[in-house]
Amino acid sequence: MTHFPPQAPGSVLLVGAGPGDLGLLTVTGLRALERAEVIVADRLGARTVIDQLEQERGAALDAEIIDVGKQPGHHPVPQDEINAILVEQAKRGLRVVRLKGGDPFVFGRGGEEIAHVRAAGIDVHVVPGVTSANSVAALAGIPLTHRGVATSYTVATGHDQLSELGGGRDHTVVVLMGVGTLVHSAMVLARGERGSDCPVAIIEDGFGDRQRVTIGTLGTIAFHAARRGVRSPAIIVVGDVVTLSPYADGAFTSALDPAATHTAATNVAATHTAANHSAATHTAELTRNT
Amino acid sequence: MTHFPPQAPGSVLLVGAGPGDLGLLTVTGLRALERAEVIVADRLGARTVIDQLEQERGAALDAEIIDVGKQPGHHPVPQDEINAILVEQAKRGLRVVRLKGGDPFVFGRGGEEIAHVRAAGIDVHVVPGVTSANSVAALAGIPLTHRGVATSYTVATGHDQLSELGGGRDHTVVVLMGVGTLVHSAMVLARGERGSDCPVAIIEDGFGDRQRVTIGTLGTIAFHAARRGVRSPAIIVVGDVVTLSPYADGAFTSALDPAATHTAATNVAATHTAANHSAATHTAELTRNT
Repeated sequence: MTHFPPQAPGSVLLVGAGPGDLGLLTVTGLRALERAEVIVADRLGARTVIDQLEQERGAALDAEIIDVGKQPGHHPVPQDEINAILVEQAKRGLRVVRLKGGDPFVFGRGGEEIAHVRAAGIDVHVVPGVTSANSVAALAGIPLTHRGVATSYTVATGHDQLSELGGGRDHTVVVLMGVGTLVHSAMVLARGERGSDCPVAIIEDGFGDRQRVTIGTLGTIAFHAARRGVRSPAIIVVGDVVTLSPYADGAFTSALDPAATHTAATNVAATHTAANHSAATHTAELTRNT
Repeated sequence: MTHFPPQAPGSVLLVGAGPGDLGLLTVTGLRALERAEVIVADRLGARTVIDQLEQERGAALDAEIIDVGKQPGHHPVPQDEINAILVEQAKRGLRVVRLKGGDPFVFGRGGEEIAHVRAAGIDVHVVPGVTSANSVAALAGIPLTHRGVATSYTVATGHDQLSELGGGRDHTVVVLMGVGTLVHSAMVLARGERGSDCPVAIIEDGFGDRQRVTIGTLGTIAFHAARRGVRSPAIIVVGDVVTLSPYADGAFTSALDPAATHTAATNVAATHTAANHSAATHTAELTRNT
């Protein structure tokens, strides 16, 4: 018995689409999409999952798809309007799936949508999803925690609170939506216990065609990102766990090495355009200034 | 096209089972279980998902299932032995799925298992899963982030680093495996900017039969937990996002209320044994000392 019974007519289901790969959609998410009469979909993650599902079925989904995603250079559908669409469609007695990238409760405004729909007297539930904070880091072979290397992690956006964040390199930081504020974030994090030679990885377009990993330190990452033209969407991982990534490829003294001192300033940029994310097949471009 | 092609013989796939509900297994995870020849499974989360899948199919999976989970009061299989089993089974040329509760890279020792298997020359990949940090909180209606309430979150165990953690009530803290160290953790967190009247929720046995939510503050939660006999497994959520939970049920001044002052010391314990996690049907037991 799963906790997720089939959706009733006239209700809204907030479904986490995961990071934009059908394989990381949940079983309940998949079943909900197949049964839905209306799907209100974001661009990032959500739209890709629908496309992959339709491609795999060889046929379109039965649902009407309302695309409310933010298009680069286009106006996104405002949150108020999305809320209104959800209520309006559910009031027509339809099974409405609100498909959101990642997990609806992580920077997804899921809480706001639930509150709005519930206030309108409509039944609403949430189906958690795989967040990109976890899964895109995994794509670069980076565990957010690892015995003897990191025992906790923080997920934040580039706009917030990084200056208040304690902890050292054994406290992993994942920054979402952080490319635009990278220079500032790196500087703020370097000021604390982490220091300017703390390892950093940027994973662009996780699970997408432009997937690429850039490795550096808090002191060098902004330079590498600028030089390589790093673009959104991307997640930034900060901490000693980055040394475990095959993309770091010996660039740092391993955090697992008992003799590790972390005193050398190592400037490294590694890149990999995926298709095959096997560690054995990646190519790295390394620039070391030791 | 998904990034997860079918598993090759003689390889190991680390699969995140999610929090212990078939509905929150990923599509790739489901397919891997159906194709696996050997499944090396943890108790928490993983075993439940296999049971639910077999129940739904009305037949056992084809795979041999090796249970390495920690049984309460029994000796768990040591990590070294798990590593050895993975290598041994893969060397037999089998498709080995290592099914781990939650996400393999969040307190799951996934990084260690990958390193060990890879060192033995065996192909190994990871399929991220839904962590309980996110999904069990969602079960209690708690978004980890919410506009105007919380813009970042930290995931830690009860043993670690909470004293170094900065931030206030708008920085959500999720503590996993934290029941045994609750008194200490609450005290440490209350000392900082959060203060002793910061809202706390404990969700026991998420997605299980003993599911129950206990609400309090950093100042009162240890008392309530002791009185109610709160037991592992449980996740603890600390921060203003707890006020958004239907289980909090007006116990706190809502963090969304512009007039919120958070100065009243409110002692609250709310409980709900699930089966139906609709907000409308929960019952709450409230003890207020205002």
